[in-house]
Amino acid sequence: MPHLVVLYTNNLETQSDMSALCRKLADAMLTVKDEASKQVFPTGGTRVLAFPAAHFAVADGQRDYAFVYLNLRMGRGRSDDVKKKAGEALRAVALEHFTDLLAKRYIGITVQVDEGQEAFDAKLSSIHPLFNRN
Amino acid sequence: MPHLVVLYTNNLETQSDMSALCRKLADAMLTVKDEASKQVFPTGGTRVLAFPAAHFAVADGQRDYAFVYLNLRMGRGRSDDVKKKAGEALRAVALEHFTDLLAKRYIGITVQVDEGQEAFDAKLSSIHPLFNRN
Amino acid sequence: MPHLVVLYTNNLETQSDMSALCRKLADAMLTVKDEASKQVFPTGGTRVLAFPAAHFAVADGQRDYAFVYLNLRMGRGRSDDVKKKAGEALRAVALEHFTDLLAKRYIGITVQVDEGQEAFDAKLSSIHPLFNRN
Repeated sequence: MPHLVVLYTNNLETQSDMSALCRKLADAMLTVKDEASKQVFPTGGTRVLAFPAAHFAVADGQRDYAFVYLNLRMGRGRSDDVKKKAGEALRAVALEHFTDLLAKRYIGITVQVDEGQEAFDAKLSSIHPLFNRN
Repeated sequence: MPHLVVLYTNNLETQSDMSALCRKLADAMLTVKDEASKQVFPTGGTRVLAFPAAHFAVADGQRDYAFVYLNLRMGRGRSDDVKKKAGEALRAVALEHFTDLLAKRYIGITVQVDEGQEAFDAKLSSIHPLFNRN
Repeated sequence: MPHLVVLYTNNLETQSDMSALCRKLADAMLTVKDEASKQVFPTGGTRVLAFPAAHFAVADGQRDYAFVYLNLRMGRGRSDDVKKKAGEALRAVALEHFTDLLAKRYIGITVQVDEGQEAFDAKLSSIHPLFNRN
């Protein structure tokens, strides 16, 4: 159920390996542990999806700005501490991945973690059985 | 105001007819009735938008996994029962549409229904008048 | 932190200049003032991202319908009045931008403003320093 959506200005498409970023973010999610040292995000339910914006406007539009938005939607009921750990894990990946670009160009990166408030939630999966429901 | 957003890994683009899926999902939304047997989603306000992710990472990345996320945002004030009926209608379409792929490949499908909490809501439409505001 | 996401049916791609729309929306956001006449959305943190849907279904599917969804996510703690002013500013831009299309074709446009409820929020930016943290 956890998923991370990455929205970004498409002027980054040739400047940053976004597939590699997705993989690093997913790997980071898989390392997050809760208070009982249990994996927070089930392996079979962890997914990162990235979407370049075909059109965009950033700030005053006077320079070649770029922007990346990382939004993680977690299942309900986790502690504030776990949400913070998840956010910090994503932030650390983003900082590592974009360090060079942050120094070389105008770019803004935002990481936000939301707790889902869904009124209905259903899953169909041929992936979960691979991972013993963890 | 209701809308359904479908986010999916682009390895499905040639394996599944996503335009057909959108139509089936919209048709299913139009059949949902409330406690008074009234159509829940106004015809002129029903829309399904699907976006393939240009980049993605799923689970441990060791196999060719696919993922589809269906997220319905409903107007406020509907009963839990109506939200559940809407979710079940979408789930049934997804199950029918992806039955073959669920058997043939690794794929995860999640259906979530959210109740919008918007602080502002405005509409401009040349579609609604066609449907007598139903 | 504020950002505006525009989701639209891709039958509009050749009928409407969506890059121009993004710029006009960002400019409108930058004009919104709070009760103390202070700019609500920091220049360096204002971004509009637009995504054409590769697949879609609208209403009964019997005509060539189009749809545009504008969703602004604001930071927490603003007054209802400020949220409404922000929504009205976006609605005014949408109305101006789509007036011709509203008269010429079937199109629905929805503007919604949400208040973010994020459990975690972090920023990395080489844009903000340009604007003195306003």
